[in-house]
Amino acid sequence: MRIVIVGGVAAGMSAASRAKRQNPRAEVVVLERGEWISYGACGLPYVLGGEVRDWDALVARTPEQMRGQGIGLRLQHEVTGVDAKGGTVTVLDRVKGRTGTEPFDRLLIATGVSPILPDWARTDLHGVHVLRDIPDGQAIEASLKRARRVCIVGGGYIGIELAEALRSRGLSVVMLEKAPDIAGRALDAGYRKRVQDELEKHGVDVRTGVTVEGLTGKAGGVTGVQTDAGLVRADAVIVAVGVKPNVELAQAAGARVGKTGAIAVNNRQETSVPGIFAAGDNCESIHRVTRRKVHVPLGLTANRMGRVAGVNMAGGEAHFPGIVATGIFKFFGLGAARTGVTQAEADHLGLKAVSVDVSSTDHAGYYFDASPIHVRLTAEKGTGRLLGAQLVGCRESIKRVDVVAALLHSRGKVQDLAEMDLAYAPPFSSVWDVLLVAANRLSRQVGSG
Amino acid sequence: MRIVIVGGVAAGMSAASRAKRQNPRAEVVVLERGEWISYGACGLPYVLGGEVRDWDALVARTPEQMRGQGIGLRLQHEVTGVDAKGGTVTVLDRVKGRTGTEPFDRLLIATGVSPILPDWARTDLHGVHVLRDIPDGQAIEASLKRARRVCIVGGGYIGIELAEALRSRGLSVVMLEKAPDIAGRALDAGYRKRVQDELEKHGVDVRTGVTVEGLTGKAGGVTGVQTDAGLVRADAVIVAVGVKPNVELAQAAGARVGKTGAIAVNNRQETSVPGIFAAGDNCESIHRVTRRKVHVPLGLTANRMGRVAGVNMAGGEAHFPGIVATGIFKFFGLGAARTGVTQAEADHLGLKAVSVDVSSTDHAGYYFDASPIHVRLTAEKGTGRLLGAQLVGCRESIKRVDVVAALLHSRGKVQDLAEMDLAYAPPFSSVWDVLLVAANRLSRQVGSG
Repeated sequence: MRIVIVGGVAAGMSAASRAKRQNPRAEVVVLERGEWISYGACGLPYVLGGEVRDWDALVARTPEQMRGQGIGLRLQHEVTGVDAKGGTVTVLDRVKGRTGTEPFDRLLIATGVSPILPDWARTDLHGVHVLRDIPDGQAIEASLKRARRVCIVGGGYIGIELAEALRSRGLSVVMLEKAPDIAGRALDAGYRKRVQDELEKHGVDVRTGVTVEGLTGKAGGVTGVQTDAGLVRADAVIVAVGVKPNVELAQAAGARVGKTGAIAVNNRQETSVPGIFAAGDNCESIHRVTRRKVHVPLGLTANRMGRVAGVNMAGGEAHFPGIVATGIFKFFGLGAARTGVTQAEADHLGLKAVSVDVSSTDHAGYYFDASPIHVRLTAEKGTGRLLGAQLVGCRESIKRVDVVAALLHSRGKVQDLAEMDLAYAPPFSSVWDVLLVAANRLSRQVGSG
Repeated sequence: MRIVIVGGVAAGMSAASRAKRQNPRAEVVVLERGEWISYGACGLPYVLGGEVRDWDALVARTPEQMRGQGIGLRLQHEVTGVDAKGGTVTVLDRVKGRTGTEPFDRLLIATGVSPILPDWARTDLHGVHVLRDIPDGQAIEASLKRARRVCIVGGGYIGIELAEALRSRGLSVVMLEKAPDIAGRALDAGYRKRVQDELEKHGVDVRTGVTVEGLTGKAGGVTGVQTDAGLVRADAVIVAVGVKPNVELAQAAGARVGKTGAIAVNNRQETSVPGIFAAGDNCESIHRVTRRKVHVPLGLTANRMGRVAGVNMAGGEAHFPGIVATGIFKFFGLGAARTGVTQAEADHLGLKAVSVDVSSTDHAGYYFDASPIHVRLTAEKGTGRLLGAQLVGCRESIKRVDVVAALLHSRGKVQDLAEMDLAYAPPFSSVWDVLLVAANRLSRQVGSG
C-alpha cells in the first residue's frame, strides 16, 4: 500500500500521521512544494505582531519528527500533474529542477487555498504582499523594516488580525474594504460595527466602500494604492481580499468540483475519482445547520479532514461530521466569535429566523474586572431550532460560543439552551450567563412567529 | 389570588418578580426575616477580598425597585409557623416584636440553607463566624480589623474562596479540613491536589486530616482552635464545614423531605402539600445524568427554581429541567470547574465509568500568554455516554466546562464531543481544543470497556 499526499501543512500532515498509525506497514509519502511543513498558518499574523516568538515556533512537528514516524517526506517537491488511471503523479523537484513520476495506490490532495490576487495586485513592485505561508510572512517582515505606513486591502479575519499586528509595531495602518463594512462575511451588521469601532479606537484608519484601482510605485517599490476615493500612500501593501481553493490538481485527476468552487468529497474525504482523496482548505464540507455544501477553510476543519482521510486511505473507516461554521478572531482588546448562521445568512437562505441581541457583562457586574459582552442569538421561528450565535466581547469571554456550537451539532432548540446548567460564580459569569439571558428572551419570541 | 413568599434572596425574589409578571393582578407578598433582599450571596467572599466594592454592590434589586413592581415586601418579618389547611402563616415582626398571621392562596418556602454549626462552634466567644449572608460578612469584616491570623475550618468552595480573600488582605490563613483533601466533594483526587498546591503557593497553611475539638478564648474573644493535631492560634475563626437546608417550615406544613435531607418537590416546584411550593437552596433537584434526587444548593439553580415556582403559583405552567451539577470556583490565579459526576461519584453510584486526563494549554502553546489547563473527562464504558468533566486552569479558560454541561443535558456521547466544531484561533484555543483532545482519547477507550 503506497499512500501519496500532496501538501504537508495541516490536512496533509494530519493525514500522514493518521495513515501511518492506522496501517504501520503502509508506505506514506508526503510531497510538499515549500520548505515548511506542519505549521499553524493561523499564527502567521501573531509572529508579525510579536505575540509569537518566531516562525519556527509555529511548527508543530519538524521534518525530522515526521521522518522518525516512518513518513517519507520530500520538501520542495511540487506535484504538477496526475494520472488517475495509471496511479501516478508528476513531481517537480524544485531544487534539482528535475521532473519525475511517483506511483500511488491512494492519493490525497491537500493543497489548501491561495490568496486571491486581483489584476491590480499582479505587479513586480516591491512591498506588495499576501499572507498565506511562512515565506510570505518573512517577506512582509522584511518589508516592514523599511515601512512606516502600511495599507491592508481587505477587512476579513486576516486583514483584521494583521491590522492589530502592525499597529502593535507602531506602524500607521490604513484598511481598505470594498464592502460597506469590515468582517462582513462573519457577522451581522451591528456586530461588524463593533469591530470597526475597536479598530478605529486603536488607530487603524478604516475606509469602507472603497474600490482599489491600482498601485503606484517608484524605483521598483510600491508608494501607494490608487482607489476610487483617491490615493492612499503606503510603503507596503498587504492584499487580503480572500482565498480560493487550489483545485487544479483535483480537476486534472478528473475529480468533481462543487458549486462552492471547492473540491467535492463524501464524508470519507473521497473525491469523485476512486482512490483519490482530498482534505483541508481546498474541500467543501456539509454545514450541519443548513445541510448545504459550503466552503469554510479553517484550521480545525483542515486537521480533522486530514485525519479522516488518513484513516480511510490506510484501510480504516472514519467520517467527517461536517461543520457548523464556528469562527473566532481577536482584534486588539476584543474578540468576536460566531457559529451556525447569521441572521443575514439565514435570510439569504430563506430560513425563517429571528434574532435577539443581549448586552451584558462577561461575569458578575459587581466583580471588579467585569467587561461588556454582546450576544446575538438566532433561531428558527415556530420550531425554536437554534441557528446560530454571534458574540463580541473581551478575549476571555467569547469562547462560550462553543456552547452554542455544541447545541447546533445536536440540532438543539433555543429552549434547550435556556435550560442549561451553566457554570456560575461571580468571577466567571453572571448568575444568568449571557447565553441563558439571550436564550430566555429568544424562546419567548420564536413561538410567536 | 394572594401569593406569600417566605425568603427574599435568590429564589424568593425571582419567584416574586416572575409571579407578578405572569399575573399582574395577583397580590404578591414577600416576608424576609433579614434586612437585605435580592443579593448575590456567592459574591460575599469577594467583598471581603476587595474585588467587590461594598456590600450594597451585591444587591441586584433594591426594596424600592421591588415595591415599584407592585410587590409587597416586608423586611425583618420572620415566618415562624404555617397552617396549611387554614392557608395562613404566623409572622413575627422582629422590629415591633409582634406576631400576627397572613393568609395565602399559594405559599412559597424559599428559606435557603444554614451553615452547619458543630457543637464546638456554638460559643459566645467573639471572632467566631459563619458566612451565609451580608450581616455575617459585615461581622467578619469587623473581626478582621483586629485580626492577624485567621483559621478557616472547612475546605469546600466557600472556605477556599475565603482563603483567597483573606490572603489578599495580608492576613495569615490556616485552613483546617477533616477529610484527607480539600475540595473533596467537587473534584477527583488529582484535581484536589492542584487546588491545595495553589493555595499553599499563595501562603495558605492547609492542614488536612485534622479534626477540630474545641476553641480556646481569652477575655471573651477566640484565641485558637484546639484540634487532634494540636492548638492552632487564631484571632478569628470562620466555620465553613457545609450547609443544611432549612426544612423546618416545610415540615411544619406537612411537606415531605427527601432522602437528601432537602425538601422534595416536583418539577413545578410543588411540595407534597397542595398550594405550597418550595424553591432554592432548601430543595432537592433531579440530576439529569444520574436521574437521582440530589441536593446541590447553587445560585443559578435557586434563581431558576424561583422563576418556575413564580410562574406556576401565578397560574402559569413552567418546569424545572433538573441540573447536571455544574460548579466553578476561583482560587488565586486558577479556577476549577466540574459538571456531571466525577469518577469517584460514578464509582460510588455503581456506574461503569472511565476517565482520561489531558494536560494542555488554554490556547495555542506558541502564543505568548498560553497557560496550563488540565481536563478530566468521564464517560460510561460501552455506551460512551458522557458522564462528566473536571477542569483546572487559568480563570479565563475553564468556563469551557459549559460545553460538556450542554452535552450532558442532551445525554450526548463522548464521540459527539469529539466531532464538535469548536472555535479556534491561536489566542483562544489550540487547533484541537483540550476538550476535543480529551474526547478523542476517551472515545478510543470507552469501547474497549
